[in-house]
Amino acid sequence: MSASTEDATHLQAEVDRLRLQFKNLKADRDMGHISIGNYLLTRLEQLGVKSMFGVPGDFNLGFLDLVEDFPTIDWVGNCNELNAAYAADGYARVNQQSLGVVLTTFGVGELSAINGVAGAFSEMVPVLHIVGAPSTGQQKAKAMLHHTLGDGRYLAYTRASEQFTVAQAALGNTDAAALEIDRVLLECITKARPVYLTLPADLVHSEIPADRLSIPLTRNYPLNDPSVEEYVLDLIVKQVQAADADVIVLVDACTIRHDVRKELNEFIRRTGFPVYAAPMGKTAVDENYPRFGGIYIGSISHPEVKEKVESAKMILSVGALKSDFNTGNFSYNIPPTKTVELHSDHTHVQYAQFPGIGMKRLFPKLTDRLEPFKQAALKLDVPPFSAVPPDDPTPIINHAWLWPTVGSFFRPKDVIVTETGTANFGILDIPLPEKSIILNQILWGSIGWSVGSTLGAALAARESGLGRTILFVGDGSLQLTVQELSVMIRKGLKPIVFVLNNSGYTIEKYIHGKHRHYNNIADWTWTSLLTTLNDGGRVPTKSYKVSTKQEFSQLLQDEKFARADCMQLVEIIMPALDAPRALEVQAEMSGKSNVFSAAAAAGVAQ
Amino acid sequence: MSASTEDATHLQAEVDRLRLQFKNLKADRDMGHISIGNYLLTRLEQLGVKSMFGVPGDFNLGFLDLVEDFPTIDWVGNCNELNAAYAADGYARVNQQSLGVVLTTFGVGELSAINGVAGAFSEMVPVLHIVGAPSTGQQKAKAMLHHTLGDGRYLAYTRASEQFTVAQAALGNTDAAALEIDRVLLECITKARPVYLTLPADLVHSEIPADRLSIPLTRNYPLNDPSVEEYVLDLIVKQVQAADADVIVLVDACTIRHDVRKELNEFIRRTGFPVYAAPMGKTAVDENYPRFGGIYIGSISHPEVKEKVESAKMILSVGALKSDFNTGNFSYNIPPTKTVELHSDHTHVQYAQFPGIGMKRLFPKLTDRLEPFKQAALKLDVPPFSAVPPDDPTPIINHAWLWPTVGSFFRPKDVIVTETGTANFGILDIPLPEKSIILNQILWGSIGWSVGSTLGAALAARESGLGRTILFVGDGSLQLTVQELSVMIRKGLKPIVFVLNNSGYTIEKYIHGKHRHYNNIADWTWTSLLTTLNDGGRVPTKSYKVSTKQEFSQLLQDEKFARADCMQLVEIIMPALDAPRALEVQAEMSGKSNVFSAAAAAGVAQ
Repeated sequence: MSASTEDATHLQAEVDRLRLQFKNLKADRDMGHISIGNYLLTRLEQLGVKSMFGVPGDFNLGFLDLVEDFPTIDWVGNCNELNAAYAADGYARVNQQSLGVVLTTFGVGELSAINGVAGAFSEMVPVLHIVGAPSTGQQKAKAMLHHTLGDGRYLAYTRASEQFTVAQAALGNTDAAALEIDRVLLECITKARPVYLTLPADLVHSEIPADRLSIPLTRNYPLNDPSVEEYVLDLIVKQVQAADADVIVLVDACTIRHDVRKELNEFIRRTGFPVYAAPMGKTAVDENYPRFGGIYIGSISHPEVKEKVESAKMILSVGALKSDFNTGNFSYNIPPTKTVELHSDHTHVQYAQFPGIGMKRLFPKLTDRLEPFKQAALKLDVPPFSAVPPDDPTPIINHAWLWPTVGSFFRPKDVIVTETGTANFGILDIPLPEKSIILNQILWGSIGWSVGSTLGAALAARESGLGRTILFVGDGSLQLTVQELSVMIRKGLKPIVFVLNNSGYTIEKYIHGKHRHYNNIADWTWTSLLTTLNDGGRVPTKSYKVSTKQEFSQLLQDEKFARADCMQLVEIIMPALDAPRALEVQAEMSGKSNVFSAAAAAGVAQ
Repeated sequence: MSASTEDATHLQAEVDRLRLQFKNLKADRDMGHISIGNYLLTRLEQLGVKSMFGVPGDFNLGFLDLVEDFPTIDWVGNCNELNAAYAADGYARVNQQSLGVVLTTFGVGELSAINGVAGAFSEMVPVLHIVGAPSTGQQKAKAMLHHTLGDGRYLAYTRASEQFTVAQAALGNTDAAALEIDRVLLECITKARPVYLTLPADLVHSEIPADRLSIPLTRNYPLNDPSVEEYVLDLIVKQVQAADADVIVLVDACTIRHDVRKELNEFIRRTGFPVYAAPMGKTAVDENYPRFGGIYIGSISHPEVKEKVESAKMILSVGALKSDFNTGNFSYNIPPTKTVELHSDHTHVQYAQFPGIGMKRLFPKLTDRLEPFKQAALKLDVPPFSAVPPDDPTPIINHAWLWPTVGSFFRPKDVIVTETGTANFGILDIPLPEKSIILNQILWGSIGWSVGSTLGAALAARESGLGRTILFVGDGSLQLTVQELSVMIRKGLKPIVFVLNNSGYTIEKYIHGKHRHYNNIADWTWTSLLTTLNDGGRVPTKSYKVSTKQEFSQLLQDEKFARADCMQLVEIIMPALDAPRALEVQAEMSGKSNVFSAAAAAGVAQ
C-alpha cells in the first residue's frame, strides 16, 4: 500500500467515525436530555402521582427545587417523616392504579420513616421511598458528615431498608440512572410493595437522555403457562362439580392489593356464588350486592356467617392473607380438601400447589368455565348483611351502638380510615356503601398510622373526585401522630375526624393489663386542638364533643355537619372498658397466645 | 468383690450423688431465683436507672407488669416510640454514670424508635433498647402475627437494628438469659453506645438463678500495655519540650462520652495549659475557668481563638470527633506534626498511631509528667471567654442579641438542651455556668430530637438534684415531636421551653432554598399548646409570647419566671431569615459542599 493510499484509508476511517459520532449526537439531541431529578418526576407523573410526601433536609433540597417547580406534582411538607410515610401509604391505597411517594433525607429522615415503609411492605402497598443523600464524592470519601454514624458506614441505612423493600437502587452515576429508576418503579407497581431509591445531591441536576420516557412503565402481570393453567381450570371445575356447586367465595386482602377486583366482580356476577369477605377483603365486593353475606373471621364471625361458610362443600378463596387478626386468631374451620385458593402468583387446589399460576390471568377463564353453574349457585341462600343499632335506653355511647349508627351516616364514595384499635374491629360488622373505600392496617397494626394515612387518603380522594374522608381513631393512637392534623388544615382538606376518647389504650387493656397504669395516657383538650394547630383558627375548622347517644345522633343528622365543608373533629366520650364484640373475642385469644405460646403457635403454623 | 460389697459401693455412690444434688439445690435455694424480667430490672437498678421510657404494645405488656411493680424504676409512658428513644438518649446524657432505657414492641414499635437509637450510636450515648417480642413458640412457628412482615422473616427487625447497636441479644431460653443480659449491658456502658435486647413474651416470667446479681456490672476501662504507654508518654513529653511548652488543649465530645472529664480537669489544673473546646466538647471544662478560652471551630472560630489555637506549637487534642459541623466544615488549620490526639482506645503522636493506648489510664500519668511545665504554661495568654449583647436599638429580637442575653439567665447546674438548627449554633459563643450541662446532637442532627431529649434530661436532672431544664427549639423542629410536651406535664416536670418562632426551617433556608415554599411550615398558636395538651390546664403551666427585646428582657428578669416552678413555654418571635453568625458561615459552606462534591470531599477525607 502506498503512503497516499494508506493516508486515504485513514482519512476514510476518520470520516466514517465522525459521521457516526455526528449521527449519534444528533439522535441524542433530537430525543432530548433531562436532569435525573426531572426524569424521576416525569416517571412519577406518568404513573399518576400528583402529591409527594416528606420532610426537607439538606441532602434533598436540590431535588425539592425540581419538585416545587414541577407543574403536576404537589409537595406536601409533612410534620415528620413517619407521618409522611404513613401518608404515602394512605395515598397509594386510595389512588389504586398509582403509588405513594415519600421523600426524606439521609440517615435521620429515612430512619424515622422506616416503620411506615415496613408497614407498606407488610400490607402490600406500593410506596417509593426517595432518600436525598450526600454527593457521590462525599460518599466515596466517607466524610464524617452530620447525619452519619461517625464511622464511615455509608451503607448502613440501605442495609436496614433492604429488610423492608423489594428493590433498592443507589444512583451512583449518570449512565445507569434511568435504567435503575425504571427498575425500582416497575418492581414497586408490579409487586405492590415499597422500593428504596437514594438520590445523591450532585446527581439530581445531571443530564441524561430522555428517550426512555417515551415508553411509559406499566404494571406487569406475568402470563400463566397455558398447559398448567388448563390443567388447573379442569381441576377446579371438577371440584365444583363434586361439590354440587355448593361453593362460596371468600375474598381477602390481595384481591385489592393485586388488582383483581374487576375480574372478581365479573366472576361473582356471572356465576352467582355467594360471597363473603375476610376483614382485609372488606369492600373488595360492594357490600350492598345481594349475594354478599358479610365478614368471615373464623370463630369470631357472626354465627350465621360462620355456619354458611364452614358448611359449604367448597370454598373459593381469593387473595387470602391469613394473619392472626384477619382470621379470628387462626380459627378458620375449613379443611384444605374443601379449598381452592387463588393468589397473585400461585394457586392451590386442595393439597396441590401450582406455582406461577396467578389469578389475574386465571380469573376470566375461570369465569367462563363456571358460568354454567349459575342456576345452581343462585339457589344457595345468602344471609342479609345489615346492622341496626340495638335498642339501648342508656345515654352512654358504647361500641355496640356506635358502629351501626355511623353505618347509616356513610355515603357512596366515602373514604373511611380506621385505626388499629377498637375502630378496626367495630367497622367490620357494618355494611359500607358502594364505591366506598376502607383503609386499615390489620396485619401491620402500627398505632398512629391512621392519622398520617388519612392525610394521604384525603388528598388522593380529592384528586380523584371521591367523597368525604372519615377517620375513626382512639385518643391513645391520635397522640402518636397528632401533628399531621395541621397539614390537613394547611392543605385545605376537610376530613371528619372522630376521636374515640376512652382514656387510653383500650385495645391493650383488652389484651392485657385492664387496670394497669401503663395503658393510661394524658388527657388532652381535644376540642381546642384544631385551632391550636392552625394559628388560632385562621382556616375555619369545627370541633364538637358528644357524650350521649342523643348528642351524637343529632350531630350525624345535621346536614351542615354531614356536608363536611371544613375540617371537623368530633370527640366521642366512651367508657374506658367498652369494646366492639369482635375485639373482645380476639383480644382474649391474642392475650392468651402471647403467654401460652406453645399451644397457640402449634395451631398457628398451618 | 462380693455381691454385697458391690451393692455397698453402689449405695455409697448413690448417697454421694444425692448429697451433692442436695447441696447444689440448697445453694440454689439460698441464692434464690428470680424471673428474667426482674433480673433485668435489678441489673438496671444497680446501674442507676430510675426511669424507663417507651410505649406499651401487646408483646411487652407482661414485662410492663413487672416494671410497674418494680419499686425503684418509674415507667414513663411516652406518646410515641421515637420520642421515647430520644428521651432515653437525653436521660443517659444527664445521668452520666448510668444508661437510658427504651422499651418498645416487636416490629412497629422498635422500628419507630430506630432513628433515636441510631442517633445514640452516632453520638455515643449508652441506650438499652428492649423489645417485647412474640413468644419463643410463635417465633419458631413463624406465625403470621400482626406486627410481622407477613413472610415469616422474624429476624428482619434485628437485622436492621444490628446496623445501629454495638451488641444484640435475642433471649431464646432460660439457660443463657442472665449471661446474655449482662453481656449487652456491659457492652452498652463500656462502649457508651446502644445495645438491643429482645424479650419474648413467654420468657419474662421464667425463673433463673439470681446468683450473678450479687456482683454488680461495672464499666470496664482496659489497661494500657505498660511498655507502649511509657513509650508514648516519653514521646509526648519530648514534643512538649520541643514546643517550648507552647501547648494548648482542645477538648471534644469523647471527653464527656468516654468519662475522662475528671482526669482532664485534674490535668489542666495541674499543668496550667490553655484550654479550648470544640462544639461537642462544650462544658467538658467549666467555662468560667480562667484558662478556658472558648470554642474552636476551624474557620468559623472567633478570630482571636482561631489565632491562639492555630499558632500554638503543639495541640493536645482530647477525645476529638471531627465531623463537619464540629470542625467548621473540616476547616481546622492544624497540621498533624503539631498534634497529639488522645482517644478512648488509641493515641496519635504526630503521624504515629498507638492502638490500645486509651486516655482514661494514660491521663493521670501524663498529668504527672507534664506538671513540671506549669510555670511556662501559665505564661501563655488566654483570651477571655465572654459574651455581651450588642448595643442594638431596634426592638426586633435577633440571634446576635438573643444568645448573649439568655447567657446571663443561666445558673449553675442548669441543664440546657439545644435543637439542631439555629439554637445549636447560637449557644456556642455563650459561656455557660459551672456544673451546667449542655445537650445537643451536632453529629447526628435529627430535628425534633431535643424535645424528647428534654423529657429525659429533665427527669434525670430531677433525680440527681440538678437545676432547671431549659430547651431552645425552633417552631419547625418542635412540630416533629410536639406531643412529648404533654408527657412532661403529666410527669410534673417544669422545663422552660423557648420556641424560636421564625416561620419555618431557618437552618435549611440558610443551606439552600432561602425563599422556597418547602422550607415553610404551618403556623400554630404556640401559646395555647400547653393547655391543649393538658386537659384544659388541669396542671398549672404558663405560656408567654415575646416580640421585642424589651418584652424578652423583662420576662428573663422576672424572678417568678426564673424560678421555674411550673412548666413554661415562651414563644419568641424572630425574623425568618436571621441566624447566629456561626450558622451563617457553616450553612454556606455546607450548602456548597452538597452540590460541588468532589472538591469538598477531597478536603474532607483527611
